[in-house]
Amino acid sequence: MFPRLNDGGSAERREPAELILQSLKITDRQTIIASLSSSLGAALERFQGEVKFEQEREILAATGFPGFLTRLLSSAVASSGWGRSYLLCQEIGMAPSRYKLIYFNARGRAEHIRFIFAYAGVEYTDHRIVKEKWPEIKRSTPFGMLPVLEVDGKAVCQSNAVARFLARQYNLAGKDEWEALQCDSLVDTLGDLKQVLWYYRSEQDPIKKEERRATLLKETIPFYLKKFEKVISENGGFSVGNSITWTDFVFAVSLENFELIFGKDSLEPYPHLRKLKEKVFALPSIKAWIDKRPQTEF
Amino acid sequence: MFPRLNDGGSAERREPAELILQSLKITDRQTIIASLSSSLGAALERFQGEVKFEQEREILAATGFPGFLTRLLSSAVASSGWGRSYLLCQEIGMAPSRYKLIYFNARGRAEHIRFIFAYAGVEYTDHRIVKEKWPEIKRSTPFGMLPVLEVDGKAVCQSNAVARFLARQYNLAGKDEWEALQCDSLVDTLGDLKQVLWYYRSEQDPIKKEERRATLLKETIPFYLKKFEKVISENGGFSVGNSITWTDFVFAVSLENFELIFGKDSLEPYPHLRKLKEKVFALPSIKAWIDKRPQTEF
Repeated sequence: MFPRLNDGGSAERREPAELILQSLKITDRQTIIASLSSSLGAALERFQGEVKFEQEREILAATGFPGFLTRLLSSAVASSGWGRSYLLCQEIGMAPSRYKLIYFNARGRAEHIRFIFAYAGVEYTDHRIVKEKWPEIKRSTPFGMLPVLEVDGKAVCQSNAVARFLARQYNLAGKDEWEALQCDSLVDTLGDLKQVLWYYRSEQDPIKKEERRATLLKETIPFYLKKFEKVISENGGFSVGNSITWTDFVFAVSLENFELIFGKDSLEPYPHLRKLKEKVFALPSIKAWIDKRPQTEF
Repeated sequence: MFPRLNDGGSAERREPAELILQSLKITDRQTIIASLSSSLGAALERFQGEVKFEQEREILAATGFPGFLTRLLSSAVASSGWGRSYLLCQEIGMAPSRYKLIYFNARGRAEHIRFIFAYAGVEYTDHRIVKEKWPEIKRSTPFGMLPVLEVDGKAVCQSNAVARFLARQYNLAGKDEWEALQCDSLVDTLGDLKQVLWYYRSEQDPIKKEERRATLLKETIPFYLKKFEKVISENGGFSVGNSITWTDFVFAVSLENFELIFGKDSLEPYPHLRKLKEKVFALPSIKAWIDKRPQTEF
């Protein structure tokens, strides 16, 4: 149902369009459009015979240029006049706007998901709802929580479950199941720390709040951050293995908030953590997203 | 590193040993041991050439009898006198006692992991530590938390990350990535409810505790359980898809505790949830585990 399309991974690693067209020995876009359209037509016929679209997938993977192909397929869908062509687009994982991410106008629990989309170069609808609308929208969500991801109209909640699902599709969940486990373990451990931070931030009593802050700064935060620092140092600057994973995005997003809450120099004792955050923020695809994303407090 | 061994899945679906031996046209155990040992020898040679052990994997998967094979491989390892044979056992996912699960003497956050091991028929060390030893052991754990799973001596924490890792290996994480996402989403949503229950149970002030109990029983619990009930009803008695997943184990274990806290008839309004719990508990492999597991309060 969800083929793992090896679409070249990140925008960074993608070859320029012209190079791809060259390698396919097709020099103008009209020709590639015609070639792909006819191949799409053949696939549509085969669809009825329930043959898998290996050839089409290969062409799409080889071009590694989803934005262009999405538009191309959209126009093929529009011109084919046949509903099943949309199913083909879904089958090859390139239906236009198959993803709709629903969240408040905040980074919060959705930002690492947005980072994955940005890094993988996947188009999606970044649907932000205003707080006033929430009580009304809440009833229509699976479990009264945001973020919700709609995949081809089917809604699913839990930010880390959604992020993991996307990370697996776009090769951001480690090189094997062991690395995938390390990703999950670190994300959940960071989640425990965030839970304690939330517990502190939601405390209403100013005296209790100050007590909690003291314990946090003296014990809890150093305990976790020292251990995270060690892991990242041992992995040569990555949280898992020796390449980018969604866990790096979770760290980067969390550390940005951490600096907001505890001050710019709060990461001073953890140079590897800070460097990881800066490295993620400097990735061209992520930087492009940060430059254009709506400015919100958290 | 961790091949997903299709070892026939559950103990329930496994064919009896004699039938397997028959189907392999080998009628006595000595012959199959000799045959597999020679095949193991060939694999060991190929190991140096870094060839994958497809053939050996196929034989092992076809026999679908891990307990017997584990013993067989142990003896092969012992007799081969070559350290690398242990690596082969690891490669095919059948090294004896590759797993050690470390937790308190409780069901708690480890029991769904134990259910996975029981259902998949995987041998492991169920290491239970006494509370008095915890402060000392805590320092040696990755993040000061239990459960910890040791895989070939490497420790990793976070119960759901560990459970998911095992579930993926033993075909308990849904039929595709979409079902895997549903599993993760439900497990995390149930985790949210468990967090609220823990918040109530850890409240010291008796008046506040009673207030919380009232809100829980009137609002929070019905909100979640009604939605879970609907999902399970729609999936014909499973939490995800139309077959057993680790999420069913997470539900079964949680619902046992739920009945302990809120009384036997607390699941009365949720017949599908109760049936799911009973179905999981009645699986022969799970029942065998429940019959022999240490009796603990939670």
